[in-house]
Amino acid sequence: MNAHVPKKTLADTLAHVERIIPSRSSNPGLSLLRIDTTEGGIELSGSNMDIDIRARFPADTQGEGSYALPAHVFSQVVRALPGDLVELEFGDKELDLSSGTFATKLQLMAPSSAPQLAFTDDLAGALDASALVKALGSVRYAAAVADYQAVFRGVKLELGATTTRAVATDGFRLAYYHLETGSGIEGDVVVPARSVDELTRILGEGEAQLGLSEGQLSVRSGGFDLNLKLMDGTFPDYERIIPKTFPVAVTIDAPKLSEAVARVALMADKTANNRVDLFVRDGVLQITAEGSYGRSQESLDVLQEGSDPEIALAYNAKYLIDALGPAAGDVRLSFSGGGPSSSPSVVADLGDPSYLAMVVPLRTG
Amino acid sequence: MNAHVPKKTLADTLAHVERIIPSRSSNPGLSLLRIDTTEGGIELSGSNMDIDIRARFPADTQGEGSYALPAHVFSQVVRALPGDLVELEFGDKELDLSSGTFATKLQLMAPSSAPQLAFTDDLAGALDASALVKALGSVRYAAAVADYQAVFRGVKLELGATTTRAVATDGFRLAYYHLETGSGIEGDVVVPARSVDELTRILGEGEAQLGLSEGQLSVRSGGFDLNLKLMDGTFPDYERIIPKTFPVAVTIDAPKLSEAVARVALMADKTANNRVDLFVRDGVLQITAEGSYGRSQESLDVLQEGSDPEIALAYNAKYLIDALGPAAGDVRLSFSGGGPSSSPSVVADLGDPSYLAMVVPLRTG
Repeated sequence: MNAHVPKKTLADTLAHVERIIPSRSSNPGLSLLRIDTTEGGIELSGSNMDIDIRARFPADTQGEGSYALPAHVFSQVVRALPGDLVELEFGDKELDLSSGTFATKLQLMAPSSAPQLAFTDDLAGALDASALVKALGSVRYAAAVADYQAVFRGVKLELGATTTRAVATDGFRLAYYHLETGSGIEGDVVVPARSVDELTRILGEGEAQLGLSEGQLSVRSGGFDLNLKLMDGTFPDYERIIPKTFPVAVTIDAPKLSEAVARVALMADKTANNRVDLFVRDGVLQITAEGSYGRSQESLDVLQEGSDPEIALAYNAKYLIDALGPAAGDVRLSFSGGGPSSSPSVVADLGDPSYLAMVVPLRTG
Repeated sequence: MNAHVPKKTLADTLAHVERIIPSRSSNPGLSLLRIDTTEGGIELSGSNMDIDIRARFPADTQGEGSYALPAHVFSQVVRALPGDLVELEFGDKELDLSSGTFATKLQLMAPSSAPQLAFTDDLAGALDASALVKALGSVRYAAAVADYQAVFRGVKLELGATTTRAVATDGFRLAYYHLETGSGIEGDVVVPARSVDELTRILGEGEAQLGLSEGQLSVRSGGFDLNLKLMDGTFPDYERIIPKTFPVAVTIDAPKLSEAVARVALMADKTANNRVDLFVRDGVLQITAEGSYGRSQESLDVLQEGSDPEIALAYNAKYLIDALGPAAGDVRLSFSGGGPSSSPSVVADLGDPSYLAMVVPLRTG
């Protein structure tokens, strides 16, 4: 089997597939890339057990065949090629690859050594890919990193008839992004956060087609097919813990607040929850932190609303900064209760009502 | 003591001083920054035992005083300041620092807790700073990284009456950069490679003043004073091992050769010296490598000279790539002998005759 393909096409496609395939694995087959050549095209596929990926691109091919070889060394070679065009000639045991002044013979493995993957064409749903990226990217930070119940390390996708929502929470903060559009398929699924990261990198322009089957979400977008393994377990009933009444609320530019919190928090004790204190009164938000190096404070003018004249709370600075991250302009920061037994605060992006974040203040009693 | 200073001046200066000061040390005083305020200026100083640094910059000051505080937290705060101007007010125990909407109180330590440093004004020598950077930066790669006799982990500066030369070697390769200008001071010194890295980062435009005293090279450049602790031990007599006759030599573009070697070397066995083989005949340089993944080869047209019709050698790919690094255009690669007991090869930069590198081929017998 022979193929001619532009280096850039091969390198760019391979970069996405290679990122999924583990460079080392206790199962050596998992580090293999499978290459299938068809009439007028090449397919590259691989898996990390949580994500299966297949990429298809057009190529000038002669003959059909299936091959496997170590993904990372192939990828390194392709990236380094000197020419604009790559010639591939697949033999029984070796791939002859040449480009410009360079030529290499790479050992081939039996295609049966690579993971056996199946990609479905039963993709009944669809969403705008960039809206899906925005939704997933806005909430992904709120997923737990480790040492938590599995379901907290994922992002929940609520696929409704006329709405789609991405939600993540680690129990201390929560974020959702709500789209007023259905995808054509319905169901609630939880995707591992690391798979969400890969999905958002791969999703391109236009539509992302979606399919739901037992334990798996399938996505097709821009030449890529993905199978995302879903997480088991029950996602918490989060709606009921989002507060609805707020004695104090302030409106402020999100990047400005975020930078001030980060600056003041440099004095905070990292081993004591990275605590920053907020105090609101008379249209001024004062941020303070104290630790062994000293103490810092910053006062920002805000638009203050609500029934109470003042409120005092403490936060983990990182959680507040994370919650503000997706907002590019003004946010409304609403406090449901302050003091030692303070209750959750809510961040609403005034420029994008789809986004909502909740942060649980630190107990200071 | 009060001072007003532009944030950018303070932050940029502090960045250089902070990089020297260790963030953690078994000697806690070593992680302190000393601040001295004088009439019309501020001095920042610190040390990592191998390098002492002092930076001076003009500032609107009132009163004189000496203070010390943890370098890294101060540096983080300064970088994050919201305003263009910083106000510093030094008290007995605290530094009040404010900028824009932000204010902080930082704990001060006794200046006697910080390293006691002495910087000399006895700087009898001088070199163009950018020439010194070029010389040191061109040879630094050839210094040994670890597990070698100390002197191999340094860069030798040969300060002659009418010449200045930087040399480094780890026994397997050597590089020198030769300036046809004296500095006004004479002597041979060996500077630790990590101190060379800091020096090249700090050296600015114009002249670098130099002073030599027992065990120490002092440098003044662009507002910075540095004391570089010198290494003991005898640097090898390298001149006699640089070959003078070459049965084969080739001329080729250095970046082109370097990229080809890197590309071919992707197949090389990393545990077997990262071996690439070079073969020259009929004006063609062929590079090959072989390992468990397969084998690669690349052929480049070269201008071939010398008495012998062909030569074959093997190299550690990294050593060859490093030696080519400082050259931007054509180099002459001269082979003093090939085969199993091959002798050193020499790289000369045709665009900059100041640079010369030597690489010892791998024994292949």
